[in-house]
Amino acid sequence: MPMLETHPGHIGLDRGKLAETIDALTACAQTCTACADACLSEESVAELTKCIRTDLDCADVCTATARVLSRHTSYDANITRSVLETCALVCRSCADECEGHATMHEHCRICAEACRRCERACRDLLADLT
Amino acid sequence: MPMLETHPGHIGLDRGKLAETIDALTACAQTCTACADACLSEESVAELTKCIRTDLDCADVCTATARVLSRHTSYDANITRSVLETCALVCRSCADECEGHATMHEHCRICAEACRRCERACRDLLADLT
Amino acid sequence: MPMLETHPGHIGLDRGKLAETIDALTACAQTCTACADACLSEESVAELTKCIRTDLDCADVCTATARVLSRHTSYDANITRSVLETCALVCRSCADECEGHATMHEHCRICAEACRRCERACRDLLADLT
Amino acid sequence: MPMLETHPGHIGLDRGKLAETIDALTACAQTCTACADACLSEESVAELTKCIRTDLDCADVCTATARVLSRHTSYDANITRSVLETCALVCRSCADECEGHATMHEHCRICAEACRRCERACRDLLADLT
Repeated sequence: MPMLETHPGHIGLDRGKLAETIDALTACAQTCTACADACLSEESVAELTKCIRTDLDCADVCTATARVLSRHTSYDANITRSVLETCALVCRSCADECEGHATMHEHCRICAEACRRCERACRDLLADLT
Repeated sequence: MPMLETHPGHIGLDRGKLAETIDALTACAQTCTACADACLSEESVAELTKCIRTDLDCADVCTATARVLSRHTSYDANITRSVLETCALVCRSCADECEGHATMHEHCRICAEACRRCERACRDLLADLT
Repeated sequence: MPMLETHPGHIGLDRGKLAETIDALTACAQTCTACADACLSEESVAELTKCIRTDLDCADVCTATARVLSRHTSYDANITRSVLETCALVCRSCADECEGHATMHEHCRICAEACRRCERACRDLLADLT
Repeated sequence: MPMLETHPGHIGLDRGKLAETIDALTACAQTCTACADACLSEESVAELTKCIRTDLDCADVCTATARVLSRHTSYDANITRSVLETCALVCRSCADECEGHATMHEHCRICAEACRRCERACRDLLADLT
């Protein structure tokens, strides 16, 4: 992301991995919001309530994580680590749930992939932190 | 966006324009969050407080707008119209403010462009609604 | 709200009405999030999908509106007006929808009230602006 | 909160503590958003950039946490625990930072208190989980 190159302060993380993670978080938040609504419009919505719930949680946590990672003023590695760990956990949970509906619903298949990619990006960034 | 193709319900908007708008909204929200923090790290932060404020507003309004536009269950054109009009106004205001700092701060130049692109996308989608 | 008394800048709105509106917005966002999840746990969830959708929209728009109204640095009445008008519209739509389920579901009855109170607060504040 | 009494499903947490925590989270998110903007309007804004950054992070994390805690459909204790731990950490960090400016800025004093109360509420709820 070109924005990262323009920040006047020090960025305490690998810029390439950081850009990739923010990108994955933004895509995941968007995909989960869309998947929750697609589930809501399925005739079988009553079987998809857990999926909708994990989608909504995942969208909220990814949005907050992307915002925290976009700030570098007075960087605090402990906060970044904790936020990333929680986000990776929520993404894995949502990926697991969506995967269970992937053969029935294409939106769940795409969403599971977005969650897996986001979990991986969070863990890659975490590996640099510890 | 492939997610739009998987929605089981009726989508009351042009899918190509809708995908482009959601994309522009997500990018604008992300860029404004990053620009606010870059401004906060500038030595001249005291001259950038209006820019930070409009960035934060724009990020919040674009995030909410992207979420509303990602839902198609029980679509209501009046709500979509009102949300898009407000978002276009906030984007224009943020673009105007960032443009004033564009020659000094590269992050403001990039952010002004993201806001202009987002305002245009919102207005293009609005043109289809009315 | 005591926070409003501590702001070092000029506040371009009636402080009492502003505090009441921010309070109503925060309560409405919270109640709509809870109502969406309560609907999701109802056996009759298939009949509540429109309610869930309007709840989610209302929560997102109220959250963004509360944030914009909490900022007074470089106040812009045109943005405040547009944000409040959109929020009032979304609250009314959600109140109407929830009211239709109020006799069946207590969470919808409470949520309709929170939306009505929030719509009223937004319109009261708007009346001062124009 | 009366909404908690109306949920049709099982709520896997002490309802009194849960209501108190959601209340503290909502108040903290709101106070941090207002404190960030009050700092932005201070003449000494250049000395408050770390405070603004932690305020913005805290507002985002508290907002996401309140939303996750407002959902009880398919409750997952591991996610609740992780989200609460991250939120308690972010609240403590913001309280520490705001406390350093409490004698100079009343908004920082009030915000530090809201963050402390929120951290305590998160930890009280966590104690029930483990």
